[in-house]
Amino acid sequence: ARRGYPEAVLCQGKSVAQLVEITRAWRERAARQDLGPVLFTRVSPEQAEVVLAELPDAHHDETSSLIAWPAEPPRPTGGRVVVVCAGTADLRVAREATLTARYLGREVTEVVDVGVAGLDRILSKRDVLRSADVVVAVAGMDAALVPVVAGLVACPVVAVPTSVGYGVAFEGVSALLSMLNSCSPGVGVVNIDNGYGAGHLAAQIAAPKDKPHA
Amino acid sequence: ARRGYPEAVLCQGKSVAQLVEITRAWRERAARQDLGPVLFTRVSPEQAEVVLAELPDAHHDETSSLIAWPAEPPRPTGGRVVVVCAGTADLRVAREATLTARYLGREVTEVVDVGVAGLDRILSKRDVLRSADVVVAVAGMDAALVPVVAGLVACPVVAVPTSVGYGVAFEGVSALLSMLNSCSPGVGVVNIDNGYGAGHLAAQIAAPKDKPHA
Amino acid sequence: ARRGYPEAVLCQGKSVAQLVEITRAWRERAARQDLGPVLFTRVSPEQAEVVLAELPDAHHDETSSLIAWPAEPPRPTGGRVVVVCAGTADLRVAREATLTARYLGREVTEVVDVGVAGLDRILSKRDVLRSADVVVAVAGMDAALVPVVAGLVACPVVAVPTSVGYGVAFEGVSALLSMLNSCSPGVGVVNIDNGYGAGHLAAQIAAPKDKPHA
Amino acid sequence: ARRGYPEAVLCQGKSVAQLVEITRAWRERAARQDLGPVLFTRVSPEQAEVVLAELPDAHHDETSSLIAWPAEPPRPTGGRVVVVCAGTADLRVAREATLTARYLGREVTEVVDVGVAGLDRILSKRDVLRSADVVVAVAGMDAALVPVVAGLVACPVVAVPTSVGYGVAFEGVSALLSMLNSCSPGVGVVNIDNGYGAGHLAAQIAAPKDKPHA
Amino acid sequence: ARRGYPEAVLCQGKSVAQLVEITRAWRERAARQDLGPVLFTRVSPEQAEVVLAELPDAHHDETSSLIAWPAEPPRPTGGRVVVVCAGTADLRVAREATLTARYLGREVTEVVDVGVAGLDRILSKRDVLRSADVVVAVAGMDAALVPVVAGLVACPVVAVPTSVGYGVAFEGVSALLSMLNSCSPGVGVVNIDNGYGAGHLAAQIAAPKDKPHA
Amino acid sequence: ARRGYPEAVLCQGKSVAQLVEITRAWRERAARQDLGPVLFTRVSPEQAEVVLAELPDAHHDETSSLIAWPAEPPRPTGGRVVVVCAGTADLRVAREATLTARYLGREVTEVVDVGVAGLDRILSKRDVLRSADVVVAVAGMDAALVPVVAGLVACPVVAVPTSVGYGVAFEGVSALLSMLNSCSPGVGVVNIDNGYGAGHLAAQIAAPKDKPHA
Amino acid sequence: ARRGYPEAVLCQGKSVAQLVEITRAWRERAARQDLGPVLFTRVSPEQAEVVLAELPDAHHDETSSLIAWPAEPPRPTGGRVVVVCAGTADLRVAREATLTARYLGREVTEVVDVGVAGLDRILSKRDVLRSADVVVAVAGMDAALVPVVAGLVACPVVAVPTSVGYGVAFEGVSALLSMLNSCSPGVGVVNIDNGYGAGHLAAQIAAPKDKPHA
Amino acid sequence: ARRGYPEAVLCQGKSVAQLVEITRAWRERAARQDLGPVLFTRVSPEQAEVVLAELPDAHHDETSSLIAWPAEPPRPTGGRVVVVCAGTADLRVAREATLTARYLGREVTEVVDVGVAGLDRILSKRDVLRSADVVVAVAGMDAALVPVVAGLVACPVVAVPTSVGYGVAFEGVSALLSMLNSCSPGVGVVNIDNGYGAGHLAAQIAAPKDKPHA
Ligand SMILES: Nc1ncnc2c1ncn2[C@@H]1O[C@H](COP(=O)(O)O)[C@@H](O)[C@H]1O
Ligand SMILES: Nc1ncnc2c1ncn2[C@@H]1O[C@H](COP(=O)(O)O)[C@@H](O)[C@H]1O
Ligand SMILES: Nc1ncnc2c1ncn2[C@@H]1O[C@H](COP(=O)(O)O)[C@@H](O)[C@H]1O
Ligand SMILES: Nc1ncnc2c1ncn2[C@@H]1O[C@H](COP(=O)(O)O)[C@@H](O)[C@H]1O
Ligand SMILES: [Mg+2]
Ligand SMILES: [Mg+2]
Ligand SMILES: [Mg+2]
Ligand SMILES: [Mg+2]
Ligand SMILES: [Mg+2]
Ligand SMILES: [Mg+2]
Ligand SMILES: [Mg+2]
Ligand SMILES: [Mg+2]
Repeated sequence: ARRGYPEAVLCQGKSVAQLVEITRAWRERAARQDLGPVLFTRVSPEQAEVVLAELPDAHHDETSSLIAWPAEPPRPTGGRVVVVCAGTADLRVAREATLTARYLGREVTEVVDVGVAGLDRILSKRDVLRSADVVVAVAGMDAALVPVVAGLVACPVVAVPTSVGYGVAFEGVSALLSMLNSCSPGVGVVNIDNGYGAGHLAAQIAAPKDKPHA
Repeated sequence: ARRGYPEAVLCQGKSVAQLVEITRAWRERAARQDLGPVLFTRVSPEQAEVVLAELPDAHHDETSSLIAWPAEPPRPTGGRVVVVCAGTADLRVAREATLTARYLGREVTEVVDVGVAGLDRILSKRDVLRSADVVVAVAGMDAALVPVVAGLVACPVVAVPTSVGYGVAFEGVSALLSMLNSCSPGVGVVNIDNGYGAGHLAAQIAAPKDKPHA
Repeated sequence: ARRGYPEAVLCQGKSVAQLVEITRAWRERAARQDLGPVLFTRVSPEQAEVVLAELPDAHHDETSSLIAWPAEPPRPTGGRVVVVCAGTADLRVAREATLTARYLGREVTEVVDVGVAGLDRILSKRDVLRSADVVVAVAGMDAALVPVVAGLVACPVVAVPTSVGYGVAFEGVSALLSMLNSCSPGVGVVNIDNGYGAGHLAAQIAAPKDKPHA
Repeated sequence: ARRGYPEAVLCQGKSVAQLVEITRAWRERAARQDLGPVLFTRVSPEQAEVVLAELPDAHHDETSSLIAWPAEPPRPTGGRVVVVCAGTADLRVAREATLTARYLGREVTEVVDVGVAGLDRILSKRDVLRSADVVVAVAGMDAALVPVVAGLVACPVVAVPTSVGYGVAFEGVSALLSMLNSCSPGVGVVNIDNGYGAGHLAAQIAAPKDKPHA
Repeated sequence: ARRGYPEAVLCQGKSVAQLVEITRAWRERAARQDLGPVLFTRVSPEQAEVVLAELPDAHHDETSSLIAWPAEPPRPTGGRVVVVCAGTADLRVAREATLTARYLGREVTEVVDVGVAGLDRILSKRDVLRSADVVVAVAGMDAALVPVVAGLVACPVVAVPTSVGYGVAFEGVSALLSMLNSCSPGVGVVNIDNGYGAGHLAAQIAAPKDKPHA
Repeated sequence: ARRGYPEAVLCQGKSVAQLVEITRAWRERAARQDLGPVLFTRVSPEQAEVVLAELPDAHHDETSSLIAWPAEPPRPTGGRVVVVCAGTADLRVAREATLTARYLGREVTEVVDVGVAGLDRILSKRDVLRSADVVVAVAGMDAALVPVVAGLVACPVVAVPTSVGYGVAFEGVSALLSMLNSCSPGVGVVNIDNGYGAGHLAAQIAAPKDKPHA
Repeated sequence: ARRGYPEAVLCQGKSVAQLVEITRAWRERAARQDLGPVLFTRVSPEQAEVVLAELPDAHHDETSSLIAWPAEPPRPTGGRVVVVCAGTADLRVAREATLTARYLGREVTEVVDVGVAGLDRILSKRDVLRSADVVVAVAGMDAALVPVVAGLVACPVVAVPTSVGYGVAFEGVSALLSMLNSCSPGVGVVNIDNGYGAGHLAAQIAAPKDKPHA
Repeated sequence: ARRGYPEAVLCQGKSVAQLVEITRAWRERAARQDLGPVLFTRVSPEQAEVVLAELPDAHHDETSSLIAWPAEPPRPTGGRVVVVCAGTADLRVAREATLTARYLGREVTEVVDVGVAGLDRILSKRDVLRSADVVVAVAGMDAALVPVVAGLVACPVVAVPTSVGYGVAFEGVSALLSMLNSCSPGVGVVNIDNGYGAGHLAAQIAAPKDKPHA
C-alpha cells in the first residue's frame, strides 16, 4: 500500500496458510484502530473461502476476484473516475479498477463494450467521458480504444492492457505496446491486467485537492 | 514479380555493378518485346544515378525512392484504390504503395495526415474512403488508424506498418502487432515499410474481374 | 462484424452466462428482422452446448469449433475462394476460414495436405488454384507453402499462420514471420490461427463487384 | 495535441521542407487568433535552424532539443510538478518533461542525480518530493528510483524510462519493464524517452480543478 | 556439484525410476566412504516419496522442495551469509538458497518481507545486512531491492530473480534484467529461481580462507 | 579450426595490430612446416591491406571478404558440394561457403538466383542438385528455398540464413526460424551469415571416406 | 519423408481418428509393396494404443514416444553414428535420434550423462567419439557440450537443443543459441527437441557412398 | 561507487562539459582529503582528452578505454584474481575487469585466448586457475568457457558476457543466457561488456577478511 492509502493484499502466489495468518493479523489490528478498508486481490476460489471464513461480512466480487472488508466503501470524495472497457472479456480487469477506486473513496462510472471496430459506440459515450476527472481505459485486442478515448477528453487517461486475445496478442504485450506507443498525449500505462494499479492511480489523480495523503 | 504482373527490382542490397547489369538486360529485352512497366524500389541516390543513366526517360520519385520505366503509368482499369496515411513521416511508404498500384494499372487516391488522435480528421474523409474498392492504410505510431478505418468501410483493407517512431515503436514491430491483432475483420497485413507489397496486393484485389491478372 | 456483413461472436474468453445472454438477444432481434447468418467462433464444448440449447437448429462444426445459425449458408455470389492447407493439423484453422467465407456468401473449395516437402502435391493442384479469385493459404511448420502458392497464381493470397509445431515454431510466430517476409508479392497476412479473419477478408475480396459490400 | 491543450510538433522523421511549411502555417494562424504556445520536440540542429529562421523569438533548449514559441511560458496555475532524474545522462529527457509541463502552465521543480545506489541522496529530497501534486521520475539504468520515489509520496507518479545504458539496458526496455512491474501502486508509465508525454500527463494531473479543458 | 563441494541432484525432469536408481547408488557409495551431504532439489511430492523411502532419515523442506541427507548440516565455518527476500511469494527460492549454503557449511540468517515499496522495512535491517560477508537478495516484482541492498553493504551481493509476478514480470525475466542492469556494482546474478546456485555461490564466497574449497 | 582441418582467422573484431601479429606468426610457422591453407574471413578493406602486405601472393575475394593463402586451393577429393543461393544479395555469404569448401579440398558448384517466387528456376536445376553429395542452401527473405531444395534431393542440406531483408526479416532471424522449423528432414542449420561454417560442415560431410578427416 | 528414405508420421497434433486412418492406409499399401520401415513420432499414450491396435507387432519405445513398424530395424550399412547426451533429462530426445538413425539403416552408439561441468566424463569418451562418422550431440542446460565435442572430433556434428531446464533456459532457446553461436566449425543445428530430424540427418551424412539414398 | 570503495565515473552518455565539471570537482576534493583512486570508464577519445587535460598524471589504458587517477594502483592486499578471456576480441572487456580489480587493491593475473574449441589451451592453464581466489571469465561467442572453467576450480567465478560475435550472438545476449543457464554452480553473472562490474565484484570477493569496508 501507499502512504495514507488503504492496504491491499495480492493473494496470487501466497499459500492458504500464509493468507490465513495475514487475514487474522489484520482483523486483530483493525479491532484496535481504524485502518480503513483492506482489499484482497486476485483471490482464487480456495483462497476466497479462507478469507471469508475469517472476515464473514466482507464483500466478494467474483468477476474481479476481489474481496473488500469492510463491505461498505467509504463515502466518495474528490473527482469522478470513468472506467471504459473494450469487450466483455476485459470486464474482470475493468471491475478490479472500478472497485479499487471506489474503496479508495472515489465515485466511479463503468462503461462497457465500446470497442473501436464500431466507432459509434464510443462516440455515443462522449458525454459521460467528458464528465470524468480521470478515465481508466481497459482493452486487450482492441487497444486502439486508448488513443481514441484520449483524443476525446482533456483529463488524464490511465491505460490498462489486458491479456485477452490469441496469437500475436502475446498475453497482453501487443496491447501494452500499442498503448505506450500511441500518439495521443496524456496517457499513463500500467502493467498488463493490473486493474488494481489503475484504480489506485486514478483514485490518486482524482483525490480531493486539500492534500489528503501527505 | 508475379505471374502476369509487371516486374519489380528491389535495389536495396544490390551492388551498383549488379544493378547496371540488370537494368541493361531489361532495356534490351524490352526493345524486343512489350514487357510493361518495370519498378526499381528502395533505390539509393547512388543507385538512382546509374539506373537513370541507363533509362534516362524513367520517372524517379524521391519521396518513395522509386523509379518507374516507362514514366507513363498504364491507363487505369479495374476498381479504385485509396491510400490513407497517419502522419507525414509515413508518407514515403504510402507513396510507394500509391505508385506501385498506379503502375500496375489502378486509379489511386491518396489521403494524408489523418491520425486518430484527432478523430475528426479521419471521420471527415468517410466519403472518399467509402468510394474505394480497397483501402491501403499506412501508419507507424498511430497504428490505431487501421481498426478505425476498417470499421468505416466494407471493402478489404491492406495494412502497412511503418518503422516511424521511437522507444517501443521497435522499428515498426509495435505497429505490426497492433494491426494483426485488431478487432475489425477484413484486414490483411504486409511487412513493415512494405509499400510495394501493399500496392501490389491492392492492385490485385481491385483488378478488373473479366481479365483478372493483367 | 463489419459494415454490411453478418455478425460473429468470438466465444473464447466469454463466460457461459454472457454467452446465453448474447445468444438470446440475437434470437429475439432475428425474430423481428432479417439479420442474416451469425457465426459463433472458438466455441468450447461447454459453450457449444448452451448456444445449441438456444439455437437448436444451428450448424455445429466440431473440427473448427464454429457454430452457424441459420444452418444453411446463403446461395453463393461473387468469385471463388480456394482454401489450401499444409498439414492435417492445420485443418481446424483452414475449416474456420472455409466456413466463414461460405456463410458470408462465397463458393469455397478446400485443398488439404499439400506441404512443400513433397512439391508434387501442390504442383498437381495448379488447376484448382488458378481457378480461384482469392486463395487462403494455411500453414504452421510448413509456411513455405505461402510463397510457393503465391508464385503459382495471379490472384490475391490471404496467408494464415497456425500455432502448429514445436520448438522454434513459437506457437505460430515463426510461420507468421515467414509469411510476412516472403518474396512473392500479393500476400496479405492475418493473425495466428485467425481462420475467421482470413475467411472474412477472402469473402470481401471475392465479393460481387456490382453490390460490393453485401 | 489534446483537446484544449497547446500544440506540439514531433520533428523527428519530418523533412526540412515539411517543417518549414508547418512552421509558417502556424505563424500565420497565430497572427489571426491566440493559439497559445507551440512546442517543437526532438529538433535536430539542422531542423532547429529552419524553425528559428521562421520564429526568431522562440526559445531553444539544447539539452532537450525543444523549441517553444512564444518563448515566455504562461503564468503557472494548478498544482506543482516535481521532476526527478537518476543520472546526468537522463537529463535530456527530464528537461523535455520539465519544459512541456511549464509551457502547459504548471510550476515545475527539477531534482537531478538522485540514483538509489546512494539512498541518502533521494532520502534527503523527501521534503521537495512531498510538496508535489505529481512527480515525474526519469531513469535508465537506475529504474529502481521509481518504486523508491513512489514509496515516499502519496501523489501520482509518472515514470519515464530512458534509453541510457548498455548491454541488457536494451535501449530502455529493461527500465520500462522495471517501472511497469514495480510493487508500488500509483505509477503510470509512458514510452521510453518520452519526456514530452510525461510532462503533458503531469500537467493534466496537476491542472486547476475548475475543469480547464473540457 | 563442484570440485570439493557436496553433491546435488536436480530432480526436475527425471523420472521416478531414474531417481530411485540415483538415490540407491548414492546410499551404497556413502556406506563405503564419507561423501558429505547430498541435496535433492526441485523435488515433486511424488519424487520426495521415493527419495524418502530410500533415505528415511533425510530432511525434507517443503517450502523449498529440497531434501538433504544426512539431515544434520555440517558445523558452520567461514563467513556469514544473509539471505534477504522481498515478498512471501519469493520465500521458496530464498529458502533453497538458505538451505544450500547451510548444508555447504555456512552460517545463514534469513530476512523476509523487506520490499522497497516501504523503504523503512529494509532500512531497519541495516545492522544484520552489515554483519554479512555475502548477501543473497531474492526478489520478483520487487527487484529494486537489489540495488538498494547493494548500496547499503560493502560485501558481495548474489542476486536471484524469481518468477513471481504477472504481466510484464515475464516469469522473472523483468527482474533478471533489472538486477543485471542496476547501477550498484558488486552484484553477481544467477538464473531465475536458482536458489540452489545462489546458495552455492554464497557459500563459496564466504568459505574459510585457509581451507578455501572444502 | 577443427582437428585435421586448415586454420581460419575471423578478422571481424580484431585490431589491425593484432592481425599483423597473427599473420606474421602464421607465415613464420608455415616456413618451417606444411600447414595447409589458411583463410582470413570477414576482412575489412583496411584489414585486407595489412594481410596482403604480409602475404602478397594470397587470394583476396572481395565478394565474400575472404583471403586465402596460398592462393591455389588443394586438388579436390571426396564428394561434390553444390551451393545454391536465393538472391544476388545473398551471394557474399554463398561465396564464403563456396571458397571455404574449395580450400578445404572439395569440388564445389555454385547455383545463384533461384528463389521460390518463380518455382521454375529451382526446378530447372534439379539435375545439378541431384549430383550433389551435400547441398549448401543460402537465403534471406526467401528462406522457403530450403524446404523446397530439401524436398528435391536425398543428400544432407546445410542451411545458411542471411541477414538480407528489411522489417520482420529481423537481420536474418526470420530466415533462421524458417529453416529450423521446416518440415523436410535432413537439414542442419548454421548461424546467420555463417558461410564459413556452412562450407566447413559441407566439406566434412563430403570428405573422402577412407581418409575422412584430412 | 525424404526421397528414397522411409516414411515418418508426426503424431502430435493429429486426432485419433486421423491416426487410425493413416495407419490403416499404410498397412494396406505395405501389404502390396515393400515400403520399408515407418516411424510414428511423438506418440501420446492414447495414440500409441490405437497405432498398436492396427500394427500389433510394431516396436514401441516409451522413452522417446516412438513406434516403429516393422519392429526389426534394417541391417546396418554405411558409417557409424554416435549419439551423446548431456543429462538424463535429455535422454528422450537422444533416444529419438538413436532410433531414427537405426531404422534408417545405420549402426548407432549412445553415450549418456557426459555434461561438461565434469570435463573428465566427456574426455574419457574420446575414443568412441573418434570412431564416429557423425556425432549427434543432445543437450539442454548443458549446451556447452556441443563446442567441446566438436573440438574433439573431425567428423560432422549434428546438434540438438532440448527444452530441458528452467528460467532462462527458455524452453530450449538458450541452448539453441549457444549451439548456433559456438566457435567450433563443423556443427549443423536442428530444431529444439527434434531428435527425429537429427537422426535423419545423421543417417544421411553416414549413408553408404555408392548407394547414397537408400 | 560502493560504501568504502573508490569512486568510478561512467563516461558514456555524459557530455564533455559535464565531464570537465566532474573531473575538476574531484581534483579539488582530492586536494583536501585522501579519496583513493578514481576510475573513468568507457571514455571516448574526445572525453579522454579533457579528462587528461585536468589530470595530466592519470593512467590511460586505450584497450579498455579506462583512465585511472592517480596512475599508481594501491599495494595489493587480500586474495588473487585471475581474469580469463576466450578471444582477443574480448580483451577490451577483460582488461577493464583487470584494471578495476587492480585499482581496488587486488593482485590480478590475466590469461588470454583460451577458447574451448581447442580444449588443450584451457586445460594447460589449470594451475594458474587453481591458484585463484576468484576467477573472472570473459567470453562472447565462446561462452562455453564459463562452465568449463567453473568445472575446473573450486573458487567463485564471475562471468562477463561480451557483445563480440555476429548473427545470433545478439550483441552478447546469447552469451549471457549461456552463462546464466550453465550447469556448473558457483557462477555469478554481470551485464554484457561490464568488465568494471566484474572487476569490482571480484575485488570484493577477494577482499582481505578483516572487514575492510564495513
Ligand atoms: N492485483 C494487484 N496487482 C498488483 N499489485 C497489487 C495487487 N494487489 C496488491 N498489490 C500490491 O501489492 C502489495 C501487497 O503485496 P504483498 O505484501 O505481497 O501482499 C500491495 O500493497 C499493493 O501495493
Ligand atoms: N516528443 C514527443 N514524443 C511523443 N509524442 C509527441 C512528441 N512530440 C509531439 N508528440 C505528439 O505528436 C503529435 C504531433 O505529431 P505530428 O502531427 O506528426 O507532428 C503531437 O500532437 C503530440 O501529440
Ligand atoms: N518428431 C518429428 N519432428 C519433426 N518432424 C517430424 C517428426 N516426425 C516426423 N516428422 C516429419 O513430418 C513429416 C510427416 O508430417 P505429417 O505428414 O504431418 O505426418 C515426416 O515426413 C517427417 O518429415
Ligand atoms: N563501466 C561501467 N559499467 C557499469 N557501471 C559503471 C561503469 N563505470 C561506472 N559504473 C557505475 O556507475 C557509477 C557512476 O555513475 P555516474 O554517477 O553516472 O557516473 C559508479 O559509481 C559505478 O557504480
Ligand atoms: Mg479488448
Ligand atoms: Mg504514423
Ligand atoms: Mg503446417
Ligand atoms: Mg539512469
Ligand atoms: Mg518479489
Ligand atoms: Mg534471399
Ligand atoms: Mg542438458
Ligand atoms: Mg569470445
